[in-house]
Amino acid sequence: MKEENELNLANGFNCPLPITNYDTVQLAHGSGGKLMGELIDKIFISTFNNKILNKMEDQATLNVGENKIVFTTDSFVVDPIFFNGGNIGELAVNGTVNDICMNGAKPLWLSAGFIIEEGFPIADLNRIVLSMRQAADNAGVQIVTGDTKVVNKNSCDKIFINTAGIGILEKDLNVSSSNLKPGDSIIISGTIADHGMAIMTSRKGLSFENTIESDCASLNDLINLITNTTSNINAMRDPTRGGAAATLNEFAAQSKVGIKIYADKIPVKTNVNGACEILGIDPLYVANEGKVIISLPGEEAKDLLSAMRKHPLGANAEIIGEVVEEHPGVVVKKTILGVEHIIDLPLGEQLPRIC
Amino acid sequence: MKEENELNLANGFNCPLPITNYDTVQLAHGSGGKLMGELIDKIFISTFNNKILNKMEDQATLNVGENKIVFTTDSFVVDPIFFNGGNIGELAVNGTVNDICMNGAKPLWLSAGFIIEEGFPIADLNRIVLSMRQAADNAGVQIVTGDTKVVNKNSCDKIFINTAGIGILEKDLNVSSSNLKPGDSIIISGTIADHGMAIMTSRKGLSFENTIESDCASLNDLINLITNTTSNINAMRDPTRGGAAATLNEFAAQSKVGIKIYADKIPVKTNVNGACEILGIDPLYVANEGKVIISLPGEEAKDLLSAMRKHPLGANAEIIGEVVEEHPGVVVKKTILGVEHIIDLPLGEQLPRIC
Repeated sequence: MKEENELNLANGFNCPLPITNYDTVQLAHGSGGKLMGELIDKIFISTFNNKILNKMEDQATLNVGENKIVFTTDSFVVDPIFFNGGNIGELAVNGTVNDICMNGAKPLWLSAGFIIEEGFPIADLNRIVLSMRQAADNAGVQIVTGDTKVVNKNSCDKIFINTAGIGILEKDLNVSSSNLKPGDSIIISGTIADHGMAIMTSRKGLSFENTIESDCASLNDLINLITNTTSNINAMRDPTRGGAAATLNEFAAQSKVGIKIYADKIPVKTNVNGACEILGIDPLYVANEGKVIISLPGEEAKDLLSAMRKHPLGANAEIIGEVVEEHPGVVVKKTILGVEHIIDLPLGEQLPRIC
Repeated sequence: MKEENELNLANGFNCPLPITNYDTVQLAHGSGGKLMGELIDKIFISTFNNKILNKMEDQATLNVGENKIVFTTDSFVVDPIFFNGGNIGELAVNGTVNDICMNGAKPLWLSAGFIIEEGFPIADLNRIVLSMRQAADNAGVQIVTGDTKVVNKNSCDKIFINTAGIGILEKDLNVSSSNLKPGDSIIISGTIADHGMAIMTSRKGLSFENTIESDCASLNDLINLITNTTSNINAMRDPTRGGAAATLNEFAAQSKVGIKIYADKIPVKTNVNGACEILGIDPLYVANEGKVIISLPGEEAKDLLSAMRKHPLGANAEIIGEVVEEHPGVVVKKTILGVEHIIDLPLGEQLPRIC
């Protein structure tokens, strides 16, 4: 009975605390965990309810004449707005570029919507906007339309930025989080938890011998290399809120497969791991902003890994696990002692305003 | 000398108080007035700087294969979130639908990005999301991708919604705010100032014999009728923040033409006019959310007006003025006594958080 309950917990949408138990929105509803899954499912998906949205991908694929475009959006509310390795503007550009390219599309155009608190320093706004331009140039995209709202003092916390983006799907790929297959290998493009721990340590005022830097980066060049190396990618997603654990659970739930990862294969920087241990946080649950998790047929994994490691953003890539027929919907981690733990989708909030 | 100064003031971007005079963002920077024009010009346009953005249209036109798509975004921070005639969700859908169709494109797909304050009632969220679905259905668009962020109590005021949208430009039109020509007539599709006064009176707790209702509506069906009636529309824009005055000033500045409007032709509802008089506000400067201002060759104006008046959203349409060669960049209003006043772009903020 216990096991059945755990399996049920792991699918991400059968939340043990149904949304009807809450009268108000909780921080946990924005966490990338189970409660957020439930909020999205019970309120947004069930009301907006259309075939494109219901696929629950990070981007919508749309037909324009003979062409396919992808369309995605993200709002950024990160606190602090300037952090080691980036700022809210850079994050807003890279985050949307990454969501666009995760199904193999080429990102081209972004929108930028600013909500600014009265009294926000013009110098900070300039710095943010300049780094958005630089991030856009790095990713080869243009910011082509925008909007600015200013709200009264204390009606928002400094600045929030929404970016939406459009890309063109030029390659004939079938990449989807519903598409993992037993026998697939799981690759991650580099070390995990850098972004989340950079935010957390800058917020808590913790200092480490080596400062932890966010991995904030646009992945489209790496993704281009990946999709040029093989056309058999089954799934790709950037593990942001909720970390690698959330992405792997979404993969397992949506594809109705099991996923097994190996603890000793998961790349984590020493200082990040140290910070996680001090704070009692599992790095698997911590947000990344420049990483991709890929599922592809096992026999192609080593070749792709070699190719990825030649790219600066893939230098620390690893094969971290495999897709199995057993325990559909459930992600397990096998320790070096051979013990398997369920890596459940987090229920609630580990770190609000991470992105 | 005075006249030259006034002409200078009227072009909307030569602000008498340059942005370098401000260290921080002011409410007026989000007002739809001169300071906002300057913020956009000096910070966003000059940094993002690309041919598409620099056109300063409310939507970007982009080539996808043989097709042209349009792309636009708006964030909505209206206070209160529920008001007579609508709510923030309905406004977020209609506002973006309207921006898409203002160059004749057919709106198809929207994104929705929610920033929600911890503690926001789930029942209110449900009500907002439901009305977004209804507004989307009315406009014939689908909400195909989205994002949800929750921020700590007091880090935002209840809920902010960003929508971005994509439409397809099927007709071969040349509609642009840089395209007005002397001899054009100016048509407005109905009464002005309804939305802004609905917000203002609900905020101030003022009650009138007849409640003022927002005109919040999606205009794509009316725009479709207009572009089916004539293919010679020179410019179309929905006069939101800053009201009809801001739109007319943008038209005059961007097309380097003069605009003359007739005071007795401007449609204003009696109760709206009464509220404006009590509060000392000129309805020309008050936001609308379901109106369009059109400039087209004078000889076609009467036919278009007849066609528009057959549509429910155009029943009160009027020809309110004309485009002239004199006073380029300046909008004047001729009173029934024959006196001409300059209708300047407002410098700052009349009513923050109107949309």
